[in-house]
Amino acid sequence: MNNFRKESDLLGELQVPEGAYYGVQTQRAIENFKISGQTLSSYPEFIRALGLVKKAAVKTNYELGLLPEKLYQAISQACDKVISGDYDAEFPIDMIQGGAGTSVNMNANEVIANIALELLGHPKGDYQHCSPNDHVNLSQSTNDAYPTAIKLALLQLNEKLAKKLAFAVDSFREKGKEFADVIKMGRTQLQDAVPMTLGQEFEAFAATLEEDISKLNNNAGLFVEVNMGATAIGTGLNAPVGYAVLCARNLAQISGYPIVSAPNLVEATPDTGSYVIYSSAMKRLAVKLSKICNDLRLLSSGPRAGFFEINLPAMQPGSSIMPGKVNPVIPEVVNQVCYKVIGNDLTVTFAAEAGQLQLNVMEPVLSHCIFENIEFLCNALDTLREKCVVGITANREVCLAMVRNSIGIVTALNPYIGYKNSTQIAKTALETGRSVYDLVIEQKLMSQEELDYVLDPKNMLKPHN
Amino acid sequence: MNNFRKESDLLGELQVPEGAYYGVQTQRAIENFKISGQTLSSYPEFIRALGLVKKAAVKTNYELGLLPEKLYQAISQACDKVISGDYDAEFPIDMIQGGAGTSVNMNANEVIANIALELLGHPKGDYQHCSPNDHVNLSQSTNDAYPTAIKLALLQLNEKLAKKLAFAVDSFREKGKEFADVIKMGRTQLQDAVPMTLGQEFEAFAATLEEDISKLNNNAGLFVEVNMGATAIGTGLNAPVGYAVLCARNLAQISGYPIVSAPNLVEATPDTGSYVIYSSAMKRLAVKLSKICNDLRLLSSGPRAGFFEINLPAMQPGSSIMPGKVNPVIPEVVNQVCYKVIGNDLTVTFAAEAGQLQLNVMEPVLSHCIFENIEFLCNALDTLREKCVVGITANREVCLAMVRNSIGIVTALNPYIGYKNSTQIAKTALETGRSVYDLVIEQKLMSQEELDYVLDPKNMLKPHN
Amino acid sequence: MNNFRKESDLLGELQVPEGAYYGVQTQRAIENFKISGQTLSSYPEFIRALGLVKKAAVKTNYELGLLPEKLYQAISQACDKVISGDYDAEFPIDMIQGGAGTSVNMNANEVIANIALELLGHPKGDYQHCSPNDHVNLSQSTNDAYPTAIKLALLQLNEKLAKKLAFAVDSFREKGKEFADVIKMGRTQLQDAVPMTLGQEFEAFAATLEEDISKLNNNAGLFVEVNMGATAIGTGLNAPVGYAVLCARNLAQISGYPIVSAPNLVEATPDTGSYVIYSSAMKRLAVKLSKICNDLRLLSSGPRAGFFEINLPAMQPGSSIMPGKVNPVIPEVVNQVCYKVIGNDLTVTFAAEAGQLQLNVMEPVLSHCIFENIEFLCNALDTLREKCVVGITANREVCLAMVRNSIGIVTALNPYIGYKNSTQIAKTALETGRSVYDLVIEQKLMSQEELDYVLDPKNMLKPHN
Amino acid sequence: MNNFRKESDLLGELQVPEGAYYGVQTQRAIENFKISGQTLSSYPEFIRALGLVKKAAVKTNYELGLLPEKLYQAISQACDKVISGDYDAEFPIDMIQGGAGTSVNMNANEVIANIALELLGHPKGDYQHCSPNDHVNLSQSTNDAYPTAIKLALLQLNEKLAKKLAFAVDSFREKGKEFADVIKMGRTQLQDAVPMTLGQEFEAFAATLEEDISKLNNNAGLFVEVNMGATAIGTGLNAPVGYAVLCARNLAQISGYPIVSAPNLVEATPDTGSYVIYSSAMKRLAVKLSKICNDLRLLSSGPRAGFFEINLPAMQPGSSIMPGKVNPVIPEVVNQVCYKVIGNDLTVTFAAEAGQLQLNVMEPVLSHCIFENIEFLCNALDTLREKCVVGITANREVCLAMVRNSIGIVTALNPYIGYKNSTQIAKTALETGRSVYDLVIEQKLMSQEELDYVLDPKNMLKPHN
Repeated sequence: MNNFRKESDLLGELQVPEGAYYGVQTQRAIENFKISGQTLSSYPEFIRALGLVKKAAVKTNYELGLLPEKLYQAISQACDKVISGDYDAEFPIDMIQGGAGTSVNMNANEVIANIALELLGHPKGDYQHCSPNDHVNLSQSTNDAYPTAIKLALLQLNEKLAKKLAFAVDSFREKGKEFADVIKMGRTQLQDAVPMTLGQEFEAFAATLEEDISKLNNNAGLFVEVNMGATAIGTGLNAPVGYAVLCARNLAQISGYPIVSAPNLVEATPDTGSYVIYSSAMKRLAVKLSKICNDLRLLSSGPRAGFFEINLPAMQPGSSIMPGKVNPVIPEVVNQVCYKVIGNDLTVTFAAEAGQLQLNVMEPVLSHCIFENIEFLCNALDTLREKCVVGITANREVCLAMVRNSIGIVTALNPYIGYKNSTQIAKTALETGRSVYDLVIEQKLMSQEELDYVLDPKNMLKPHN
Repeated sequence: MNNFRKESDLLGELQVPEGAYYGVQTQRAIENFKISGQTLSSYPEFIRALGLVKKAAVKTNYELGLLPEKLYQAISQACDKVISGDYDAEFPIDMIQGGAGTSVNMNANEVIANIALELLGHPKGDYQHCSPNDHVNLSQSTNDAYPTAIKLALLQLNEKLAKKLAFAVDSFREKGKEFADVIKMGRTQLQDAVPMTLGQEFEAFAATLEEDISKLNNNAGLFVEVNMGATAIGTGLNAPVGYAVLCARNLAQISGYPIVSAPNLVEATPDTGSYVIYSSAMKRLAVKLSKICNDLRLLSSGPRAGFFEINLPAMQPGSSIMPGKVNPVIPEVVNQVCYKVIGNDLTVTFAAEAGQLQLNVMEPVLSHCIFENIEFLCNALDTLREKCVVGITANREVCLAMVRNSIGIVTALNPYIGYKNSTQIAKTALETGRSVYDLVIEQKLMSQEELDYVLDPKNMLKPHN
Repeated sequence: MNNFRKESDLLGELQVPEGAYYGVQTQRAIENFKISGQTLSSYPEFIRALGLVKKAAVKTNYELGLLPEKLYQAISQACDKVISGDYDAEFPIDMIQGGAGTSVNMNANEVIANIALELLGHPKGDYQHCSPNDHVNLSQSTNDAYPTAIKLALLQLNEKLAKKLAFAVDSFREKGKEFADVIKMGRTQLQDAVPMTLGQEFEAFAATLEEDISKLNNNAGLFVEVNMGATAIGTGLNAPVGYAVLCARNLAQISGYPIVSAPNLVEATPDTGSYVIYSSAMKRLAVKLSKICNDLRLLSSGPRAGFFEINLPAMQPGSSIMPGKVNPVIPEVVNQVCYKVIGNDLTVTFAAEAGQLQLNVMEPVLSHCIFENIEFLCNALDTLREKCVVGITANREVCLAMVRNSIGIVTALNPYIGYKNSTQIAKTALETGRSVYDLVIEQKLMSQEELDYVLDPKNMLKPHN
Repeated sequence: MNNFRKESDLLGELQVPEGAYYGVQTQRAIENFKISGQTLSSYPEFIRALGLVKKAAVKTNYELGLLPEKLYQAISQACDKVISGDYDAEFPIDMIQGGAGTSVNMNANEVIANIALELLGHPKGDYQHCSPNDHVNLSQSTNDAYPTAIKLALLQLNEKLAKKLAFAVDSFREKGKEFADVIKMGRTQLQDAVPMTLGQEFEAFAATLEEDISKLNNNAGLFVEVNMGATAIGTGLNAPVGYAVLCARNLAQISGYPIVSAPNLVEATPDTGSYVIYSSAMKRLAVKLSKICNDLRLLSSGPRAGFFEINLPAMQPGSSIMPGKVNPVIPEVVNQVCYKVIGNDLTVTFAAEAGQLQLNVMEPVLSHCIFENIEFLCNALDTLREKCVVGITANREVCLAMVRNSIGIVTALNPYIGYKNSTQIAKTALETGRSVYDLVIEQKLMSQEELDYVLDPKNMLKPHN
């Protein structure tokens, strides 16, 4: 059962497990890169994307007369099998690797070649009939096929992320409606400001996150520009005339994404700008999500010695020592994901800056960080929505009592008694513990009727004349 | 000469220099915030923007019937004076400050009030005739006026940055044309790859930077959405109905930028998303610029023990001990600006994440970092263009000799003799020091005629059939 | 086979797999936190540390008369079983979680309680005989037991990292000796400077990394201060007098590390300073390693169009299109690990800054990032040493030829002919392509004999009189 | 008055202002680097350090017989004048510059040479009598003198920072004593936990910051290792035997710091490890300070709708629209300084990682960021202490009422009624709004006498038996 076949490359012979569809170069990569333990097979969208790219490439080669039909059909069907997900386990290489993705590209080339050989009735490794380099990789280089597959995977993954985000937005919006009539104190700089509704607060959470759906989509839009046909450094050496544009068109058709050929392939090959800005867009989302989770934790602080305006659903006992304690564990975990996203964005920044001359060799860690961020954010958004937002309830009386008791409502008197008088009322209220209402009446600054109207919190929630 | 006038506020009386147009709250801020030594007056675009915002606000108040014409005219003219730049020295507050910009807003309110008082024939500080709070700040809060002014300043500053960037792009493109026929080795992973032209390399620098012009402009586009009329927390308390939209329209007209009112003012007030993503776009530019400067330094390494493909203009003696040494000092300083931009982007990230509830109180450091980044990048781009790129020359013979001598050209033989044969040729060439050409002839893998064509570097610069 | 038992907690009843040693709170955590897919069981050192902490705690409780001997023995033996590693699979919770580690602590409490119940002859879940909270967690809180376990795990993991680093240092030092007589050009700012030996260069790599062994160890030294006995917030509520010191002493004895009780438990409980600075020390190592890998890649650039001073061992074919290309894949992967380490350090920074009042709830992601960094660095250091450094060879002739051909050697003439004359010689050499030697002779600035001595590279490698 | 003298260097002639003590190379640097507007003269400690280094160097040269006494005396006196601070304005170069500090070193060399020339009775620029390169810079290179001066400056600046920090620690400790009997609720995860005193909380602030005094000092201790005598690349070319050790000894004597020569000068020359870890130590301080400021803002939130446990001194009116509002402006500005420190630390990281081969050319921005961080932190610490901490007052009744009203005190019942019963009490209290005390009595779980003792907050502040 531990049988091996021999394959060879530039460095000589190596044993490959007999049943493996991958070949010698994949085997070398397995041995060379034992770093993170996280393999390509953890990211099925990426493997699928590799299959799609290879399928578009072989189609283009066939259409340009570079491959015979029989070989084309076999390779194309092999690509379909990779796309199906059935061969994910044949991609055992560590996501963090040297070689600028050559091992990934060769892993795909080898698996597809061996599946094709099988379809053609040849044994694995009999590459004269279908070679990973000469046939599957024809008119390509790692330096075009690999980043193209990353971008294709990111187009898919971004759709997933945008959808999860939209769901989360909906959940905040629902709460915004539910809490539309819960009047509470707004706070700036953690100090009591002026009244608002809890509904406005939650609707604002929805609105601010909603902006990031289009922000993510817009930035992901950069991924449709690919550099197929660039080959090694963008000059297109060994690719036939017309390959770049035709391959992009084929990839668009096969994948369903509006893939186009980058206008300058020499520029496009080492460029990592689209990753940098997409990662930044995720960072922006993380910053917003983290702020919202901080707010949720603040608003639910208490129950007796905090704000206690809202209740988060209890998900687990909060303490191994303090009975009855319930903690905001879901916002807490989302905060932590946000910090991770920001840290990974820095890794992306370092990796992008390290590009040199005609290539950026740091794309493996760069793409891994982006994949990881998307995965973590998707999970965090689902968790936040399902296990927290939808179950939030309001403590209406607490909210209202704080408004009634507040000094901040004095702000509404500015137009009537001026900033200076208002300041003096506020100061006295703070020092004496008395209410703004009583002080204004006592000092005869306004009539009771007028005051009743102006100090009604319901009249402070939007502009008035 | 050291005379003072007394002013008072919530905290009591304070002495203000007699000649100062600013007032008591500015004076407090001067004393409270001695942090960076960098004052508002270092950023004239920001002071100008404050003037524009206040002018739009007073116009809106007048049009909505909240101010008499005489006071409107006086305040409006005072705003013009601030906009003119003549009063920049009246803004002596540290850029890094607490209070969420209240000191900045009050600094503007006070200066404008005192100029208006002067215009109206009243002494400075006689605020009953024109009050910083009740008249200049009417229908406003720091929390709307301050971020609106920041955004307006950034719209202007971005134009400057985009222009500098466009000039830098042009300089690279010119060199791209100049070097169009300089054939050289491309390199991936710092290893010899396949031939290209130096012109392609410089054109790629131009192309990659050019993308960032629109990227910056697109992201700066977010700054046109302002929250005037939000007042304290976005609910618009104390602003009349219609104020938000009319004020945005007035600001658009006065400033010439397509300012609009944010659709959700409660969301817009604490939101720092537009800063985060604009800062990210600058970071992306920094990453690209840094990569290019790294490349320029690599390509000019030598003169005898490096790549020595290009010469950067000598700007200064390179060493206090090594005579005749000339160093790539301009790319070096640009690299350092790029690292600073990336560091400042992190500060922006921290500041943005620290927003709480209805406000982000960290906007001063956040905006300062963005202002600083724009200023540094503008200076760096000018420096790079003028003192480096335009004077770069090519070492044509060096470039060509490396191509002639290279093994990487074997790549062009793949379509003729297959990857496996090519590999063996390359291996032998490396081990023996012999040329690819000789080995192919010796092994009779191709005819001399065919080989002459295929190995001519000029035929390797683009796709062929 | 899919049988369950019922357990209950504050939130009510829940089904737990019948065979599981963990209980209801672990079950809730499994369901609450589906984020990273990386579970506690991925970090056996951490689980072992939890066992050690619980063992020290139960011993202390027993010694202070809080537990009967029989129960003590059962719990202590259960801890031993957890320490043995045989129960790692019973720790299935995601490393990234909310709740400040309560789920981790309760996971340990539950597993230990159920093992103890088994030892005592009771069925799993029959907690009246041995309760996760009242017995296993006695005199403890998550807020002391959890960070103590993290620190204990880090003490072990740091030893591993320091050892790997020491091995890597040795490998560079060996090369330093091997290359002691390989004369080459030193370079500053990528420009030719003055001669040195390749041995000096590699010895410097060894020396700079060696400093980080003690730097890591010193900073890990902070982890010996633990807050056992702090209970919830450092006041020691529910812990008996003397518990903190005795428990630290017991943990020291059981673990073999010089554990002590923190002098101020209220301070120690939320403090994450030791993590921050240890993470920084790892960042420093990453910065140095990355610089060294950059150097290795530069020095091995070529083979025909680069520095080509050294050869890295070929680990895999370098390109899917360029035959014979060999890339510096090992330094490349190490660079990427370094970027990841730096990114994770930022996550640590964010998590540490987010501590609030009496606790830092972000410790799960914080500790996960540190664990991940140690693991990745250990792997990267082994990989770098085994698959790269030990196999590096020097191209002696190339190195020497660059020295012979260089202008930088003119520096050695300063003491004889002055900086100004040297400058002029260097300038002429650069412009004419002639050698420094010839020009000095021609201009009769020095005698040939003197010049032969001074320009002999061997005489430039250290101070002379 | 706008008269000039002509000087020349490798690049030819240039006009220098007649009165300037600096010379041609400084002039070139002024023109080359217009980046930040922040000049060397902003950092007098750095200029002083340059003077000290040059003084030690010339003394060493004299003692080793390389300079005649008269010239030594003149140069040494010139150094004293630079050290005195009177010539700070002669250092007009931008802090952010290319050239690895060569401009700074030459600026010092030129100013010292021209002062010496003046002392010797020669006109400025008459360098045959005293040359910036051949005499002032004798046995030195930028690559040793420049980083040595940076380190010397940092030794001084660190002392300042450590002192400011110690003052801040004292101010927190004083408050710790003042608030020793103010009982309040502790909070974990923003949820009510168990009682503590406000004094414990402030003492913990003192304790956590105090640790960073020694942490800063320990890491600054690395700066005593300097590489004088390394000259260009650490090999000591052109420095006489014994120079390195003697110069370090002289510098130690002159500066009063325990300066020593680095054991491996080839390693020490490009190494930036000491900067990285010192910057990290500042980052750690920033993280802690930021957390404390967050806490101060939380604890003072209110006055009616927040925690309101403490009052920060009112420093300025808090709002342009909300009368009477007082904001925590001092903690806010300190938070922002902390974010800036963290951002600058990232710039340091990037700059450090960018070292190449025998030098790190990014030291200017690296050192600038560290200088800026120290300055900002010193200012922030003074501000925090003077304008905030010393004036903080406690709201004792508010604090006590929250304890009395809390559910968290149920924790103290665990040892008496068990975690499970306590949980049920807590749950009922939360649901019904009733007190823990009443419920325990009602359910007859404990006697009233026992309960009175156990639930007395004073008995919950430390371990009990």
